[in-house]
Amino acid sequence: MMDKNCIFCLLANGEIPTAKIYEDDDLAVILDAGPAAQGHALVIPKNHFKNITEVPCDLAGKLTSAAAKIGAAQMKALGADGFNIIINTNEAAGQSVFHVHVHVIPRFSGDNVLPLWKPGEAKDSENMAARIRTAME
Amino acid sequence: MMDKNCIFCLLANGEIPTAKIYEDDDLAVILDAGPAAQGHALVIPKNHFKNITEVPCDLAGKLTSAAAKIGAAQMKALGADGFNIIINTNEAAGQSVFHVHVHVIPRFSGDNVLPLWKPGEAKDSENMAARIRTAME
Repeated sequence: MMDKNCIFCLLANGEIPTAKIYEDDDLAVILDAGPAAQGHALVIPKNHFKNITEVPCDLAGKLTSAAAKIGAAQMKALGADGFNIIINTNEAAGQSVFHVHVHVIPRFSGDNVLPLWKPGEAKDSENMAARIRTAME
Repeated sequence: MMDKNCIFCLLANGEIPTAKIYEDDDLAVILDAGPAAQGHALVIPKNHFKNITEVPCDLAGKLTSAAAKIGAAQMKALGADGFNIIINTNEAAGQSVFHVHVHVIPRFSGDNVLPLWKPGEAKDSENMAARIRTAME
């Protein structure tokens, strides 16, 4: 279902005009208005889901496959060397629009656009795995 | 197909023992050995694919759905406030093991574990969208 008060519902369903990279029955791909790099795209389902935990498996597949195709096209069209696919869930993780969306960011070697994490040391892995596993039940 | 020379093939298929969070016919979820935060998980398909551009749509859905379930479990088990799902493609984007994997990083408000990009200004969006769209054909 579309939510008339949701900016991403309006953009994905063409109620607000924007440059579309791709569109089908399930999703639209547009450019991020505040890009990490030129060509930074957003894959947005046409129906409203707050975040990825609400998205059914088949739609999750369509979103991710579309993101992979967009990334490959960014490499071809822009000469990018790679791309990041990012889905942020909740404000603590950087989600700012609460309609699920997949970021696809074209990357060039050494561009420093998105410095990744500093690898730490995994502690007490058996216990940590067991805690997360138990929470899935 | 499994590649006996690939560390993630060996881990996902139990040829190298590791603490598993979840496992089914298609994928395994383990803890990252160099985590951004304690509980940082990796969703890894059992078959070998170099990166997400090679993964069929149905498997992409299973990987993303598993990542969403793991993120929800990290919130429940660890008290995390959110999570990032990240798929890096190619070295320029931070991919270091060339067997596709999905990072799931538990996030706590203000943890500064993964500073996201500084939003830029989108330039010449119509033309940029057209270039990427053409490259998809």
